[in-house]
Amino acid sequence: MNGNRFGRLFQVTTYGESHGDAMGVTVSGCPAGLELDEEDVQAELDRRKPGQSMITTSRGEPDAVSINSGIQDGYTTGTPIGMVIENKDARSGKYEPYVTAPRPSHGDFTYSAKFGTRNWGGGGRSSARETVNWVAAGAIAKKVLETEGVQVKAHVNQIGDIKAPEVTFEEMLEHTEENEVRCADPETAEEMRDLIDEYQQEGDSIGGSIYFEAQGVPRGLGAPRFDSFPSRLGQAMMSIPATTAFEFGLGKEAREWTGKDRNEDWEFSDEGDPVPEGNKHGGLQGGITTGQPIYGEVTWHAPTSIPKQQKTVDWETGEEKEIQVVGRHDPVLPPRAVPVVEAMLNLTILDFMLLGGRINPDRLDDQPGEYDTDYHPSSPDNE
Amino acid sequence: MNGNRFGRLFQVTTYGESHGDAMGVTVSGCPAGLELDEEDVQAELDRRKPGQSMITTSRGEPDAVSINSGIQDGYTTGTPIGMVIENKDARSGKYEPYVTAPRPSHGDFTYSAKFGTRNWGGGGRSSARETVNWVAAGAIAKKVLETEGVQVKAHVNQIGDIKAPEVTFEEMLEHTEENEVRCADPETAEEMRDLIDEYQQEGDSIGGSIYFEAQGVPRGLGAPRFDSFPSRLGQAMMSIPATTAFEFGLGKEAREWTGKDRNEDWEFSDEGDPVPEGNKHGGLQGGITTGQPIYGEVTWHAPTSIPKQQKTVDWETGEEKEIQVVGRHDPVLPPRAVPVVEAMLNLTILDFMLLGGRINPDRLDDQPGEYDTDYHPSSPDNE
Amino acid sequence: MNGNRFGRLFQVTTYGESHGDAMGVTVSGCPAGLELDEEDVQAELDRRKPGQSMITTSRGEPDAVSINSGIQDGYTTGTPIGMVIENKDARSGKYEPYVTAPRPSHGDFTYSAKFGTRNWGGGGRSSARETVNWVAAGAIAKKVLETEGVQVKAHVNQIGDIKAPEVTFEEMLEHTEENEVRCADPETAEEMRDLIDEYQQEGDSIGGSIYFEAQGVPRGLGAPRFDSFPSRLGQAMMSIPATTAFEFGLGKEAREWTGKDRNEDWEFSDEGDPVPEGNKHGGLQGGITTGQPIYGEVTWHAPTSIPKQQKTVDWETGEEKEIQVVGRHDPVLPPRAVPVVEAMLNLTILDFMLLGGRINPDRLDDQPGEYDTDYHPSSPDNE
Amino acid sequence: MNGNRFGRLFQVTTYGESHGDAMGVTVSGCPAGLELDEEDVQAELDRRKPGQSMITTSRGEPDAVSINSGIQDGYTTGTPIGMVIENKDARSGKYEPYVTAPRPSHGDFTYSAKFGTRNWGGGGRSSARETVNWVAAGAIAKKVLETEGVQVKAHVNQIGDIKAPEVTFEEMLEHTEENEVRCADPETAEEMRDLIDEYQQEGDSIGGSIYFEAQGVPRGLGAPRFDSFPSRLGQAMMSIPATTAFEFGLGKEAREWTGKDRNEDWEFSDEGDPVPEGNKHGGLQGGITTGQPIYGEVTWHAPTSIPKQQKTVDWETGEEKEIQVVGRHDPVLPPRAVPVVEAMLNLTILDFMLLGGRINPDRLDDQPGEYDTDYHPSSPDNE
Repeated sequence: MNGNRFGRLFQVTTYGESHGDAMGVTVSGCPAGLELDEEDVQAELDRRKPGQSMITTSRGEPDAVSINSGIQDGYTTGTPIGMVIENKDARSGKYEPYVTAPRPSHGDFTYSAKFGTRNWGGGGRSSARETVNWVAAGAIAKKVLETEGVQVKAHVNQIGDIKAPEVTFEEMLEHTEENEVRCADPETAEEMRDLIDEYQQEGDSIGGSIYFEAQGVPRGLGAPRFDSFPSRLGQAMMSIPATTAFEFGLGKEAREWTGKDRNEDWEFSDEGDPVPEGNKHGGLQGGITTGQPIYGEVTWHAPTSIPKQQKTVDWETGEEKEIQVVGRHDPVLPPRAVPVVEAMLNLTILDFMLLGGRINPDRLDDQPGEYDTDYHPSSPDNE
Repeated sequence: MNGNRFGRLFQVTTYGESHGDAMGVTVSGCPAGLELDEEDVQAELDRRKPGQSMITTSRGEPDAVSINSGIQDGYTTGTPIGMVIENKDARSGKYEPYVTAPRPSHGDFTYSAKFGTRNWGGGGRSSARETVNWVAAGAIAKKVLETEGVQVKAHVNQIGDIKAPEVTFEEMLEHTEENEVRCADPETAEEMRDLIDEYQQEGDSIGGSIYFEAQGVPRGLGAPRFDSFPSRLGQAMMSIPATTAFEFGLGKEAREWTGKDRNEDWEFSDEGDPVPEGNKHGGLQGGITTGQPIYGEVTWHAPTSIPKQQKTVDWETGEEKEIQVVGRHDPVLPPRAVPVVEAMLNLTILDFMLLGGRINPDRLDDQPGEYDTDYHPSSPDNE
Repeated sequence: MNGNRFGRLFQVTTYGESHGDAMGVTVSGCPAGLELDEEDVQAELDRRKPGQSMITTSRGEPDAVSINSGIQDGYTTGTPIGMVIENKDARSGKYEPYVTAPRPSHGDFTYSAKFGTRNWGGGGRSSARETVNWVAAGAIAKKVLETEGVQVKAHVNQIGDIKAPEVTFEEMLEHTEENEVRCADPETAEEMRDLIDEYQQEGDSIGGSIYFEAQGVPRGLGAPRFDSFPSRLGQAMMSIPATTAFEFGLGKEAREWTGKDRNEDWEFSDEGDPVPEGNKHGGLQGGITTGQPIYGEVTWHAPTSIPKQQKTVDWETGEEKEIQVVGRHDPVLPPRAVPVVEAMLNLTILDFMLLGGRINPDRLDDQPGEYDTDYHPSSPDNE
Repeated sequence: MNGNRFGRLFQVTTYGESHGDAMGVTVSGCPAGLELDEEDVQAELDRRKPGQSMITTSRGEPDAVSINSGIQDGYTTGTPIGMVIENKDARSGKYEPYVTAPRPSHGDFTYSAKFGTRNWGGGGRSSARETVNWVAAGAIAKKVLETEGVQVKAHVNQIGDIKAPEVTFEEMLEHTEENEVRCADPETAEEMRDLIDEYQQEGDSIGGSIYFEAQGVPRGLGAPRFDSFPSRLGQAMMSIPATTAFEFGLGKEAREWTGKDRNEDWEFSDEGDPVPEGNKHGGLQGGITTGQPIYGEVTWHAPTSIPKQQKTVDWETGEEKEIQVVGRHDPVLPPRAVPVVEAMLNLTILDFMLLGGRINPDRLDDQPGEYDTDYHPSSPDNE
């Protein structure tokens, strides 16, 4: 309802503003028996945090997570995991000129139109800083999915008009994190880097897109109609700030394909199961997984915070104003959004795994054997 | 969870299979005092129903709706509206060969993989026949929105590689329903019609897309983050069978735009309110409405039911099989999906209107004056 | 939100008014593979239906259910089960005098205060007629629970000041349905019957209560805090019209017990599991099941529709009025509410079984073996 | 689902274990423009905190709340309010003997049966310490309700067999907080105090109950059936640890009343509105508010942590054990539960006010005037 909750059985609840005291996220519905510590979460946060390179904002946030509950001697207990990430380098003062004079194409005006006020420091609640919470929650989902052999990966496949060639899942695993653009094709990454530099020096910014893929997702996941896999994944991805398009499989291009060319005959796998002969369907048929990799694409518009001269109006004074959004801003969004996309993908898949009965919602199957020592007794079996 | 419910305050619940006894939809959360009868719903169903033209399936369904509850002397009472649409021309027999031999790229395999069974007549629950329920519910949402001056319209803007020029909202209102392709540009509509014919005669099918637009939606609607307007609209549109992409504003193209070019300065409207100088943002900033028209695009892949020779395997017998999906099928989906897109858009907007306190959830504001006669007494005011 | 939905994974959605065209209920989330036909549902409806005896309303409703979807050749398919029960003996005319003059202690005034109108025929949406939908849904839940060895039963344990002695679960099974009061102690049943007659002849009515019990519910069901078993069961029972109290275990009496007297030592069961030495805790500790029978009590106030002279006011005319609620009404509620309590208990337990991973939400475990013939093929296993 | 969320539009999400690092609660859905600071919340927490008197646990928790988000210059912003309360006097060591030997009638066994493990320090997640979160959230709800003239109050009306006489709302306001038992009748309070002392000295504990009342709740709140006011209030109250009964109006006693005696004629109020002549109905008819005060009662069993000798079994060693629950425990629960009941009542009422359109979900009506200074600009009106 209110926009601060995601997930049906794996429930994420968040709070926090860009320049407030702290960001916070509560994860309810993580099965007991998962080995987990702050380092697992921190590792993912470090991939998203600001100041990683010249093409990200220079804001100095350590993004250090504290876990307040839900873990005992290194294992989850099935009760909610409360996490807090303090904001250490908040400097909201420079946003004062925009309090009643909305920055072009930001959420300044719309948040004020809705709530009659807004936290005006750096975008407040509408800031992409919020995604630090999502990455923290996603880190836990990722660890659960690892126990089931599910793995996701994303990379930046286009910046402006520079498009990366198709890459394999293995190439994404190997190369995405090697460069600051997070494009799995090293050569394209360099071109993208140059383009971004160019726009940054002009005081401008540029859009881009991310390709994502999930491997190992079992067949038969998803539900009919309004809770179909694409429906919930679409919701997840379109929640990411500044996104304007979501696609899976052939995506938008599908409109130019004929049925004969797009359809895939069924054949038997080596194990004797029916499998489609290809994967133009992106792992999803009838809104439910086929067992083939799920893949798709998400598009971001260019960051709206740019130093170039723009115009706005002040609704208190009734005056027109020149505006230059000086601050510490990213000239392009996808490079830092890669861990965010992975997080939302992990959260969506895990939720479907739980809803589909593939993971016991109360406790991981191999739980007793793993930590049946000391003060973490296996209890009587829940039969 | 289970996929058969949509909406948070304006709640739609559906049931029914393509060749079952009846389709059914319950609408809970419609405010009291709306003038409504079966004709209002029927008018929308007639736009979606099969057999309208040569380019739609020839299945002979009258799609006649019965309203079982929630209305008294022509006005809604605030309690749930139960509707039933009987299936009159179900013929599931011809689907017997596919019971254990899935049709290529349908939901046959995935539904069976999930449930261990499926209603195998014509796609069963995965059939687009289900959208008759959505259109029925959407017809009610549309009537509520009319009381607030909100209006939506859609048209087919691309079939295969034939792309319509940009059209105005007024052109959509005027021309969309004039031709069987439902393209608001009459000339393009003819070209599209020829292309569809061509594929149909070859025993093939083709993809396409729909452009949608909503006018009169007030500013400040939507919620932060996971319940942002694009997030919930994305979920709604990706629920429609055979969709592969959802976009709003510049959509996928946004990735090639710079911030400077895409950003829109603020200026004062004639009423003295801040308004963006353009609408490349598609009516949504920070996930919340600006008051500008909301627009976007949805893509469909080609229908998977084609008479052309294809291959499948039978998981019971272990044999490979030739397959030709004879039956009564649409050679292209967007023309019949136009009312479905409009329905999902209406449902989404109304839900946000209720959540944002713009419409009283219990009763329409002008209710007493309108039907304060006979047996529909105004009651004591709910203050 | 709107009051017409119950259940989280086993989702029930209802519509209908007392004197409307039809009652309807959609059950979404029933696993595939359950043997089910209309007779299973009808058998439960027949226990609730009016006109069973002199102490129930004489309204002549056959309460015949039609199942419109979700079943194929006698087994559920995992998709929603739509049911309709037509109202055959609706006679709303006699309620005209009360349209603007609320009957004492009914929902007439409050529904009008909320919605500005109401379906005024016989209580409309507020009528206990609605519970026909609950019993229909509960019949399906009951069948699912039978596959897991869970069984529930209830009986009337007090009418006015006549209190039944404690009875065993077996006595409830044997005797409850033998008499029209549905009290499992035959002697008390007769006394209750006489008391009810007495009040009925005076044109008055009387309150009462029901004891319920569930056996075979596995331990470890329920969730912490707001979704504890008592919390959700309390919600379920307090949804039943005219209830004023919900208790479990020692219930209200618990306030007079000391910790020492109420606490139960742990001992080993024959199987070597820890079990409490008694069941004063009513099968629930910390809000979660212990594996002991769950039991409790629900209280109804006297029916408010009585032929005795009462007073009301007409909000349209501003006049005071004498009122006698003539019609076909029950002089006491618990006897007909026994199947309703059982239904709500079954629905609550099944929901927790699904949420706790004890029943596969997509398909019953033994499904393939049971109906792997004809056109209901087992599909590839969902691993 | 998972038990850590309450409320539909006013959404509370909690985490924390009795002897963990911190308790935490996120409130999403508080309208913007409410004047709020940590003191408002602290004042309520101080009423619930341990160590207040001899009859409460001696655990030394300051229960100091930190608000991390959602407030700007003293007013809420409409975005989520994240709160953290650190645990300062956690001493879980003494619970080691019970890790695999469950304390009688606690949640030790059931939590382990569900999750296969549990946070074993002092009840972990099942501890009533969690209610500190509820009181924090309730403090915010209370402030919102004050703007609408709604007020709630509760007091302890029975401990063991000592029953307080009926008191007025004003007496509750005046006397409840005067004594450590929180009984609004000072004489009875002393008797109760003596009785509690007696049991405490014996190493035993005792049950009790609380009477609650809400004044100023407007008529027409609540929804039909499953979301009726009693249904949601029952869920709320039965979520409180150690409760065994929930009643409203005449409650359990209603079963002994006839319809004629319980029914209340309608008369005109001074303002010319229909009002019932009495309030035996407890402010609720047909599950919806009449505008009369809402009142009822909640029962607690005796605390299960008692120093008296008890028996348990160790599921790891297979041995029987003597057990004495030494620690810092309350000998009776209702005195400290009074603020918890008030919190749950406030949360429930506010949720219905929002759902019923009585409070704008985005912003309080009088918001602009109140804080239209400095950096909290009123925005363009959301029309």
